[in-house]
Amino acid sequence: MSLLEKTIKKIYSTNAEVMQLALERLRNQARPAGSLGILEPLAARLAAIAGSLNVELKRKVVVTCAGDHGVVAEGVSLFPQEVTYQMVFNFVNGGASINVLGKHAGAEVNVADFGVNYDFKPELPIFHKKVAKGTRNFVHEPAMSREAAISSIEGGIEIVETLLEAGQIDMLATGDMGIGNTTPSTAIIAAFSGLPVEELVGRGTGIGDEALKIKTAVIKKALALHQPDKSDPLEVLATVGGFEIGGLAGLVLGAAANGIPVVCDGLISTAGALIAAEFAPTAKEYLFASHRSVEAGHKFMHERLELTPVLDLQFRLGEGTGAVLAMELLDAATRILCDIKTFAEVAIGDKNIV
Amino acid sequence: MSLLEKTIKKIYSTNAEVMQLALERLRNQARPAGSLGILEPLAARLAAIAGSLNVELKRKVVVTCAGDHGVVAEGVSLFPQEVTYQMVFNFVNGGASINVLGKHAGAEVNVADFGVNYDFKPELPIFHKKVAKGTRNFVHEPAMSREAAISSIEGGIEIVETLLEAGQIDMLATGDMGIGNTTPSTAIIAAFSGLPVEELVGRGTGIGDEALKIKTAVIKKALALHQPDKSDPLEVLATVGGFEIGGLAGLVLGAAANGIPVVCDGLISTAGALIAAEFAPTAKEYLFASHRSVEAGHKFMHERLELTPVLDLQFRLGEGTGAVLAMELLDAATRILCDIKTFAEVAIGDKNIV
Repeated sequence: MSLLEKTIKKIYSTNAEVMQLALERLRNQARPAGSLGILEPLAARLAAIAGSLNVELKRKVVVTCAGDHGVVAEGVSLFPQEVTYQMVFNFVNGGASINVLGKHAGAEVNVADFGVNYDFKPELPIFHKKVAKGTRNFVHEPAMSREAAISSIEGGIEIVETLLEAGQIDMLATGDMGIGNTTPSTAIIAAFSGLPVEELVGRGTGIGDEALKIKTAVIKKALALHQPDKSDPLEVLATVGGFEIGGLAGLVLGAAANGIPVVCDGLISTAGALIAAEFAPTAKEYLFASHRSVEAGHKFMHERLELTPVLDLQFRLGEGTGAVLAMELLDAATRILCDIKTFAEVAIGDKNIV
Repeated sequence: MSLLEKTIKKIYSTNAEVMQLALERLRNQARPAGSLGILEPLAARLAAIAGSLNVELKRKVVVTCAGDHGVVAEGVSLFPQEVTYQMVFNFVNGGASINVLGKHAGAEVNVADFGVNYDFKPELPIFHKKVAKGTRNFVHEPAMSREAAISSIEGGIEIVETLLEAGQIDMLATGDMGIGNTTPSTAIIAAFSGLPVEELVGRGTGIGDEALKIKTAVIKKALALHQPDKSDPLEVLATVGGFEIGGLAGLVLGAAANGIPVVCDGLISTAGALIAAEFAPTAKEYLFASHRSVEAGHKFMHERLELTPVLDLQFRLGEGTGAVLAMELLDAATRILCDIKTFAEVAIGDKNIV
């Protein structure tokens, strides 16, 4: 049995009984019922994953997955492909947005190469999971072979396992870097949902009207050419996906298989989570959505994954920046559940308190 | 000159030059322009307040202001008035939502009594700023005298000054506790905006349809009776306000006069901020909105104050719970501005980096 198959088999439903106990405790706290809004069900879900009301998110980890895309040859991005590897160096040197926000949120920042078009030296402190130096241009041929798609996913699973060797992970966040990668991500949601590309496509890092037309046409052409079978997530990933997107799917599967809640970031991370959830629907129970991205397709992904994002900051960056900020709110949710006293504990409503 | 007048005179515009420098640095960072969404202009505003790009929010303080309301006799709230003083004890004992979330966010939690219907012992560790034991029922008579309204505001200013004796405050958050206090808050926004009460009124802690009808009628009746002059914020506060709302206004004025950014929480805190901004429009430059509350009137308040909330968590609790969570995001905004490297600093786009 392959690592992918073994991992999928290890994903179990979270603890429904603990979820009910958590919801009951939240209802009985000395405040109006439901007054802490969307943090309440999220707290209950975190308890169900932990199998306990006493959840503590001590070790938080973000993995930013990088890859390049043959489809950038079509002119779908504002930045040249070289920016992908340059940003990997920026991550390693600690000067990028994810380093700054990861530090702010108390999360370890890790970088993984799944398919950057650059020869990184083996001693560079990143996860070396390169499948190939960029995908093929999926307007003309599949982005990658099925074997390569499996490799990219298994690379993500392996990263979780390696990270676990250093101790328990209480929350994992996913992030991405890859010039052009909103194009495959949008193609993936279009493939799974069957929704019109025009409704899903966005401006990525900020392309103009002309490039947006090209991007839309490119995705439609690729889907018409490959006609990926939406019941076969490996085919979707192989035909119109990306190596880092496979890696992101692997991170989600690896986290779910090890009982770790996982926060997915923007459009690309969520595309990876979608692939994971198509392989293993139970993985959705471990998933949290960080933020509403500016990208139109993101909303449809969240609907499909039945997730409510905790932030709406008009982000369109990726890297895991939204996910690490959301970690703070999810951490707050655990404190709400554990630490706010119930009416009985403070005896409000009778005179014992005074 | 009164403390209120002196404080208003001390409120100066923030540093527009530093604001421009901040926006320029944000634009030049190694990421797509504008990709960190609403946190970018907020970071620039925090820099303008600090007069420096190197903003550090070390000491964060929240003040939760409590008061009672004569208008609860009309049946506008789900909870009995006793809950106000009981919650003050809950705050002091550290078991309430604001204690839990304040600790999570690294903010000192302070409680202030501006008009609770209970005799707290002087040794209780709260700010003792009681004006009276609850306002009068404003359906029949003004909630308080003009003198009492001034006292409540000056109580808030004094709290800021007392807190400053222990050292610089880098960010202040406001919060409220007072059974029935969405009713005066909604009356205040109706008085200033002239908007129909039906569009502004909400369910507070969760009242049903019948109580909502009563609440709407009560506010309309009070406004018809007192017809407060909207150009006279003291009259608005005195006729349909509350003591803790005056205190909240005083906190905002005191913070602005001392160059401290201030995050206002839900409907009641924002009503206090509205009063402050009517006294001193420049105070708006120091104001930040934490979250969109479930209350309809909150949106109109934010529009009037020209503020964009950073969170949308479907909160309807008060106490300062949204404000302390927003502090973490504002803190993140300062890190974004200071710590993310510019393209020039990392030399992306040329080959120096590799």
